[in-house]
Amino acid sequence: HIESDIDATQHALRSYLLLLSGALIFFMQAGFAMLVAGSVRRKNTRNSMLKNLLDAVGAAIAYFCVGYGFAFGGEMNEFAGSGLPDTTFIGLENFFGQGEIDYPFYFFQYTFFAASVTIVAGTLAERCQMGAYLGYSMFLTGFVYPVVAHAAWTAKGFLSPTHVEPLLGIGMVDFSGSGVVHCTGGFTALYATKILGSRRGRFYDINTGAALDVPKPMPGHSVALQMLGSFILWFGWYGFNPGTALLLTDNPYQAEIGALCAVNTFMASSGACIAALIVKMIWSYRETGRYSFDLLAAMNGTLSGLVSITAGCATLDLWAAFLVGAIAGVLYVFGSDLLVRIQIDDAVDAIPVHAMGGAWGVIAVGLFSVPKRLAQIYGEEAGKHPGFFYSFSNGGVNADLLACQVVGILFIIAWTMATMFPFFIWLNFMGWFRTGSVQELVGLDIAYNLDGGEAAAADEGGAGAAE
Amino acid sequence: HIESDIDATQHALRSYLLLLSGALIFFMQAGFAMLVAGSVRRKNTRNSMLKNLLDAVGAAIAYFCVGYGFAFGGEMNEFAGSGLPDTTFIGLENFFGQGEIDYPFYFFQYTFFAASVTIVAGTLAERCQMGAYLGYSMFLTGFVYPVVAHAAWTAKGFLSPTHVEPLLGIGMVDFSGSGVVHCTGGFTALYATKILGSRRGRFYDINTGAALDVPKPMPGHSVALQMLGSFILWFGWYGFNPGTALLLTDNPYQAEIGALCAVNTFMASSGACIAALIVKMIWSYRETGRYSFDLLAAMNGTLSGLVSITAGCATLDLWAAFLVGAIAGVLYVFGSDLLVRIQIDDAVDAIPVHAMGGAWGVIAVGLFSVPKRLAQIYGEEAGKHPGFFYSFSNGGVNADLLACQVVGILFIIAWTMATMFPFFIWLNFMGWFRTGSVQELVGLDIAYNLDGGEAAAADEGGAGAAE
Amino acid sequence: HIESDIDATQHALRSYLLLLSGALIFFMQAGFAMLVAGSVRRKNTRNSMLKNLLDAVGAAIAYFCVGYGFAFGGEMNEFAGSGLPDTTFIGLENFFGQGEIDYPFYFFQYTFFAASVTIVAGTLAERCQMGAYLGYSMFLTGFVYPVVAHAAWTAKGFLSPTHVEPLLGIGMVDFSGSGVVHCTGGFTALYATKILGSRRGRFYDINTGAALDVPKPMPGHSVALQMLGSFILWFGWYGFNPGTALLLTDNPYQAEIGALCAVNTFMASSGACIAALIVKMIWSYRETGRYSFDLLAAMNGTLSGLVSITAGCATLDLWAAFLVGAIAGVLYVFGSDLLVRIQIDDAVDAIPVHAMGGAWGVIAVGLFSVPKRLAQIYGEEAGKHPGFFYSFSNGGVNADLLACQVVGILFIIAWTMATMFPFFIWLNFMGWFRTGSVQELVGLDIAYNLDGGEAAAADEGGAGAAE
Repeated sequence: HIESDIDATQHALRSYLLLLSGALIFFMQAGFAMLVAGSVRRKNTRNSMLKNLLDAVGAAIAYFCVGYGFAFGGEMNEFAGSGLPDTTFIGLENFFGQGEIDYPFYFFQYTFFAASVTIVAGTLAERCQMGAYLGYSMFLTGFVYPVVAHAAWTAKGFLSPTHVEPLLGIGMVDFSGSGVVHCTGGFTALYATKILGSRRGRFYDINTGAALDVPKPMPGHSVALQMLGSFILWFGWYGFNPGTALLLTDNPYQAEIGALCAVNTFMASSGACIAALIVKMIWSYRETGRYSFDLLAAMNGTLSGLVSITAGCATLDLWAAFLVGAIAGVLYVFGSDLLVRIQIDDAVDAIPVHAMGGAWGVIAVGLFSVPKRLAQIYGEEAGKHPGFFYSFSNGGVNADLLACQVVGILFIIAWTMATMFPFFIWLNFMGWFRTGSVQELVGLDIAYNLDGGEAAAADEGGAGAAE
Repeated sequence: HIESDIDATQHALRSYLLLLSGALIFFMQAGFAMLVAGSVRRKNTRNSMLKNLLDAVGAAIAYFCVGYGFAFGGEMNEFAGSGLPDTTFIGLENFFGQGEIDYPFYFFQYTFFAASVTIVAGTLAERCQMGAYLGYSMFLTGFVYPVVAHAAWTAKGFLSPTHVEPLLGIGMVDFSGSGVVHCTGGFTALYATKILGSRRGRFYDINTGAALDVPKPMPGHSVALQMLGSFILWFGWYGFNPGTALLLTDNPYQAEIGALCAVNTFMASSGACIAALIVKMIWSYRETGRYSFDLLAAMNGTLSGLVSITAGCATLDLWAAFLVGAIAGVLYVFGSDLLVRIQIDDAVDAIPVHAMGGAWGVIAVGLFSVPKRLAQIYGEEAGKHPGFFYSFSNGGVNADLLACQVVGILFIIAWTMATMFPFFIWLNFMGWFRTGSVQELVGLDIAYNLDGGEAAAADEGGAGAAE
Repeated sequence: HIESDIDATQHALRSYLLLLSGALIFFMQAGFAMLVAGSVRRKNTRNSMLKNLLDAVGAAIAYFCVGYGFAFGGEMNEFAGSGLPDTTFIGLENFFGQGEIDYPFYFFQYTFFAASVTIVAGTLAERCQMGAYLGYSMFLTGFVYPVVAHAAWTAKGFLSPTHVEPLLGIGMVDFSGSGVVHCTGGFTALYATKILGSRRGRFYDINTGAALDVPKPMPGHSVALQMLGSFILWFGWYGFNPGTALLLTDNPYQAEIGALCAVNTFMASSGACIAALIVKMIWSYRETGRYSFDLLAAMNGTLSGLVSITAGCATLDLWAAFLVGAIAGVLYVFGSDLLVRIQIDDAVDAIPVHAMGGAWGVIAVGLFSVPKRLAQIYGEEAGKHPGFFYSFSNGGVNADLLACQVVGILFIIAWTMATMFPFFIWLNFMGWFRTGSVQELVGLDIAYNLDGGEAAAADEGGAGAAE
C-alpha cells in the first residue's frame, strides 16, 4: 500500500495545484475587466464590465454543454486513445458533464476557455450590442476554440506534439497557448472590429464625414484601473504558464519545467516592457525633440511580452525569453500604430497584444526552442527537431519545428476566419451587431439603461467617480 | 522511515494548501471592502472601508482570545473526542492560543470567521456608529459564530454529520458554510438593519416625513469598484470551497472532492448570474417595453450563486449546481425587491445574497445531494440518507437529510436572533448604534473626521475621485 | 524506486509551492502601485505608476544580469559551500542565468528583490526624475540589496545563522526579511528623500519661502486605491512569510513553521492596526476633545505590523507577534509625526512603515524568540541563544541573539548609507535627481507628457476619474 499512498499523494498534489493555478487564471477575468473598464470612456464603463462578467458566465455554460466535449471529450487528462482514428477533428463525449471526467483538469481548462473569449471584449468596446456579444462568446467557446484546442493539445490533434505520429515528427509546440488561447481570441477580435467598424468620430468627422488628419484620441477614463488590470493579468500568468506544466503527469522534469515557465514569464514581460517604452521614447524624441514616457505603451508592451512567452515558456532559455519578449514589445508598438494607420479601431489594443504577440510567440518557439527541453517534455525524438537557431549545432539545418509552428498559426488564422468571419457578417447583416449611432454617442450605459436611472441620483454623492 | 516520509509529505501538502486556500479566503476581505466602497455614496467611503479593515482585525483578536476556543477548542483538526460528553455546546480549550494547536487549521478557520463578520458591514453602511460596529463584530466572532461552527463542524456538534450519532443518522451537511458562514452573517445583518432603521430619506421625505411613492435610489459611487470586489470574491471562493475539502484528511477521495467543489463553484455562479439577469430583463420589458441589462443584478446574482453552492459544492452534480445557482439568482432578484417593499434598507443587498442565498443553499443540499458523494465524505451510512430527489431511487422516500438541513437553518436563525437581536436593541437603547441625523446627512467621513481635514486640500489635485 | 518517488514528490511540492508563494509576493507589486497611486495627487498618478511598473521590470533585468549572482551565486538553494572561504562578501557565479540554477528558488528570490526596490517609489513620489529613479533601482537590485541578502541569508554570509560559525554562535535571525528587504528599502528611501528634499510648498510657502506653521497637507486622490493596495499587500504577505519556510528543505518542522508564520502574520498586523488607531484617537481627543478615526493610520499601522513580523514570524509565539505588531503600530504613528517635525517629506509614509517597522522587527526577534523554534529551524545549538526575555529561564542572561540583531541592523544602515548616499548626492549634483519646480507644480504626468495629450480629450467622458 506504500506505492498507492505515494500515488495518492502525487495525485492530490497535482489536483490541488491545478485548482490553485486555475484560480489564478480565473482571476485574470478581473484583470481584463479592470483593464477594459479603465480603457473605455466613462459613459461605457458599465456596459463593458457586464460583457466581461458575461464572458466568464457564458464560457462556463458553453463549456459545460459542448465546449469541453468538443475539445477534450473522451480523452481524460492523459489524452489516451479510445478506439477512434488516430486523428480526429473534435471530441464527441463528455457533453453536459456526462461520463468520466477528471475534475481538476476540467476546472483548469475552463479558465483557458474563459480567458480566450474575454480577449475580444475590449476591442469591440463602446459600440457592440450586448446580444451580439453574447452570441459570439457562446459560439467561440462552444465550438471555434475547442477545435483549436483539440488540434493542438490532444493526442488526437493533427498539430499536437503528443500525437502518435506528430507533424514532421514534432508537431506544433504551443505549451500554454500563445496560439490556442491568444491568437484565437486576438484574430477573432481583428475580424470582428473589421466588420463592426470604428467608433464614431475616431477616424471621420461626425458631422461632415470627412476623414480626420489625425485620428481623434478616445482615451480611457482611468489609468489606475488599467494599471491594476495589467498587474492582475501578470499575476494570473503565473497560473497560466507554470500551471500547464502540471499536465506533464509522471514526467520527472515536471517541477523543473514549471519553475522555468515562471522565470521565463517575468523575463519576457520585462523585456517587452522596456523595449516598448524605449521605442516610444525614441519616436517621441524624433517628433518633438524631447523624451516622453508612455505608460500605456509600457503596460501593453508588458502584456504582449506575456502573450509571446506563453507558447515557449517551457522550451526557451532565459535570455531567449527576454529577447522574445523584447521583440514582442517592439512589434506591439509598430502594430498598434499600423492598426491606426489602416483605420482598424481597437479600443484596448488587444489585437497587437494578443494576435500579433501570440503569433510571434508561436513562431519564436520554432526559432529558439532548446533541444534538451523538447526532449524532456515530448521525448527523445522531439529533441531532434529543435528551434531553428539550435539546429546548426546538430550538424545541419532543421526547420521542422519552425514549419510546424507556421502551419499552426496559419491554421488558427484560417479556422477562425472561416468560422467567425461569416458569423460576424451575418450578425451585421441582421442589424444585431452594432449599436445605433445615437446610443453610441450617448454612451451604452444610459442607452441600454445600465445605470438604472441612477445617473442623476449619483450626482448627490459628489462628482462622478470611477464607475 | 519510508512511511514516515510519506506521512510528512502528505502533512506538508495539506498544511501548505490550507495556507494558500486560507490566503485566498482572506483576500475576500479586499473584495468585500471594494464592493462596499463602491456601493456607498462618496461621503461614506472612508468610514465603510475602515469598518472592513477593522472586521479583519477585530475578528483576529476575538478569534485568538476566545473564538477559536469556543468553536474548536480541545478537538484539534481531527475533531477527536476528549473525555467530554458526546455533544457539547461550545469548546472550552485553546483560548489565547494556548495548548496544542494545529496552525494550518487555525489559520484556515480564522479566514472563515473574518468572512462571516464582514458580511454585515455593507448592510449597515452609511448610518452605523463605529463603536457599535466594533462591539458587534467582536461579539459575533467571539461567541455567536463559534457556537454555530461548533454545532455544525465539530465531532461534538449536535448538527454535525461527523458526530458519533448524527441527527437522523446523517446530520446537517453544510460543507463550506452556506449556513455557518453566510446565514450567520446574513441574518445578523437582517436583525441589525431592522433595528437600525433605513437611511434617512430612503423611504421617507427628509423634510415632511411623508412616505415616498418610490424609494429614493442611493446608488454607490463606483461600479468599477463593485465589479472588482465581486471578481475578487469569486476568486476567493476557490479557496473557500475546494479548501474545505483539504480537511478530509486520509480520505482517498479528497482530491476528487476538492476539484468537484471548484467546478461546482463556477457552475452555480454562472447559473445565478444569467438567471438574475434574465429575470431583471423580463421585468424591465414588462415595465418599459424594452429590455435593459442590470449590471448590479448580474453581479449580486453571481454572488448569491456562490453563496448557495457553498453548502453543497462537495455533494452535488454539476447540473444540480447550475440549477441551485440559477434558483439562487432568481431568489436574489425577488428578495432584493421584497426588502425594498417592506422597507428594510440594505445598502449592498447583503441580506438577499447571504441570508437568502445561504438558506437556500443549505436546503438545496437536502434536495440534490448525490448518495455516492455523501458516502465518500461521511461514510457508507451517510450515503443512505441522500438528497430528497435521489431517495426514490433507493425504493422509498427519505427526507432525513432534508429535515436535518431545515433544522440547521432554523437553529442558525433562532440562535442569531436570540443573541444578536437583544444586543442590537441594547446598543440602540443606549444611543450607541445609529449616527446622528446631521452626521448622516453630511456623511460619516467628515462627521467622524475620517478625512483628517483633507477634503478641502484634495480639491487641489482635481475633482474628487474614487475615494 | 519508492524512495526516489517520494523525493520527486517532495521536490515537486516544494517547487510549486515556491512558485505560488512567489506569485503572491509578486502580486504585492500591484499593491504598492495602488497604494502609491492613491497616495499621490491626481496630477502625478501616471508618473508614479510607471515607476512601480519599471521597478518590477528593472529588478528583473538587474537580477538576471548580476543581482542573483552577487546574492546567491554558486550556492544553489541549499547554500552549499564551494571551496571558497567560509565567509564571502558576495557571490560570483550564475550571472546572466548561467550555470546550474534552481529555478523555483530563482523565481522566489526575484520577487523579494522586486519588493525591496519598490518600497522607495512612494517616498520619492511627485518630484523625482524618471531616469534617476531607474538608475537607483538598477543599482539597488543589482548590487546593494544582493550584498545584504548574501550576508544574512547564505551559508557564506557573516550575519547568517546558517554559517558554519555563526556570529556569537547564533547570527542574525531575519527569517523573511524585516531587515534584508524592508530596512534596505526603507533606509534607502530615507537617504533619498533627505537629499531630494520635500515637495514644493509642503513645509515652506511657495511664494515667500517662509516656513509654514503647519505643514501643508498633500493628501492622495483616492483612499479606495490606498485601501485596495493595503489589502493586496496583506494578501501577498501570506506568500512572503510562510513561503520562506519552504526553504527549510528536509526540515521535519517545515510545515508547522510555515503555518506559524501565517498565523503570526495576521496576529501582528491586527495588533498594529488597532494600536495605531487607538493612539491616533487619543491624540485627536487631546487636541480637539472628540475622538476621530484615522483610516490612513489604521492602514499604515497594519502595514507596519506586517513589516515588523517579517523577521520573527517563525520564532515568535502568537501573543508576542501581537505585541510586536502593536508596538510597531505605535512606532509608526510617532515616527510619521517625527518625520513631519524634522521636515522629511515622505509621500506615502514608507519610512516609518518599512525602515522603522523593519528595524523594530529585527530587534524584536532578539527579545521574543522562543528557544524551541530556534532549535527547530537552526539546530539544537541555536536554541541556546534565545530571545532576551527567554534567556532567564535558562538560568542566566543571554543577549547573544539580541546583539546579533543589533549588529545586523547597524550593518544594513551603514551599508545602504555607504552606497546609496553618495549615489544620490552624485545624482543630485548632476542635476538628474529632482524635477524642475515648474514641472512639479504642473504635475509630472503632463510635464513628462505621460498623458499623451489626452488630458483635454478625457474631459469628454466626464469629470476626471481615478486616473
